[in-house]
Amino acid sequence: MKLQKALSVEAKPVEDPQAKSVTMRMLVGPDDGAPNFNMRLFEIAPGGWTPRHKHDWEHEVYVLKGSGTVFADGKEHSLSAGDCIFIPPNDEHQFINTGNEPLMFLCIVPQKQSQK
Amino acid sequence: MKLQKALSVEAKPVEDPQAKSVTMRMLVGPDDGAPNFNMRLFEIAPGGWTPRHKHDWEHEVYVLKGSGTVFADGKEHSLSAGDCIFIPPNDEHQFINTGNEPLMFLCIVPQKQSQK
Repeated sequence: MKLQKALSVEAKPVEDPQAKSVTMRMLVGPDDGAPNFNMRLFEIAPGGWTPRHKHDWEHEVYVLKGSGTVFADGKEHSLSAGDCIFIPPNDEHQFINTGNEPLMFLCIVPQKQSQK
Repeated sequence: MKLQKALSVEAKPVEDPQAKSVTMRMLVGPDDGAPNFNMRLFEIAPGGWTPRHKHDWEHEVYVLKGSGTVFADGKEHSLSAGDCIFIPPNDEHQFINTGNEPLMFLCIVPQKQSQK
C-alpha cells in the first residue's frame, strides 16, 4: 500500500510544445507497481491549455478545482469541480483553463498506452 | 465524450453484508464504453465502512472529502481529502469513516476484475 498527499508529489512541466502552463503529478504509476492504469494530477495555470490532440487510448477525468473548458466532439464544453468526463480512444480533445485559479483534474490512462 | 456532474449519477447502496452505510456511483464504466478501467465514487456515511477484504486486482484511490482511515498492511492509516492511495492486488484493505461528514473517494479498478 502506498498513501501520500497528492500535492506532495513533484509536479513536472508537460514538455509538449503544444501545451501551455501545464504540470503533471504521477500519483500512482509504474514506479508504484501499478499493473494496469496510471492516475495523474494535471494542473493548468490560468490562460493555459493541454495539447489539442487525439490518440488510441481513453481518458477518465475528474475535475478537482477551478474552471475551464474541454474541447471534444468538435466544440467546447464548460468544466468545473465535480465534473467527470470520459474521452474515448481517438476522440480529439483539449483542456483549457478559462478561469482565474488553477484548473486541477485527475486523468487516468491505461498504463501501456500512456508510455508511448 | 461524456461529461456529467459526478453527484448527478445515481448513488447505489453497496449490498455487501460486510459493508455499512456505503454507496457507489459508477462515474465511468462499461455502459459508457470504457474499455479498460472504471471510475467509481464511494460515499461512506459517518460510522460506516467498506468490507475488510482482499482480491486479485488493485485499487487506485483519491480522497475527495471527509476523513477516516484505511486499513492496509495490517494497520490503520489516517485519511483526508487530497490523499491518493495505491492498494496492490491481494492486499487486505478497508475504508472506515471516523469523521462527522461523509467520506468520499474515487476508486478506480480494472474493468474485468471489478465485474467478478
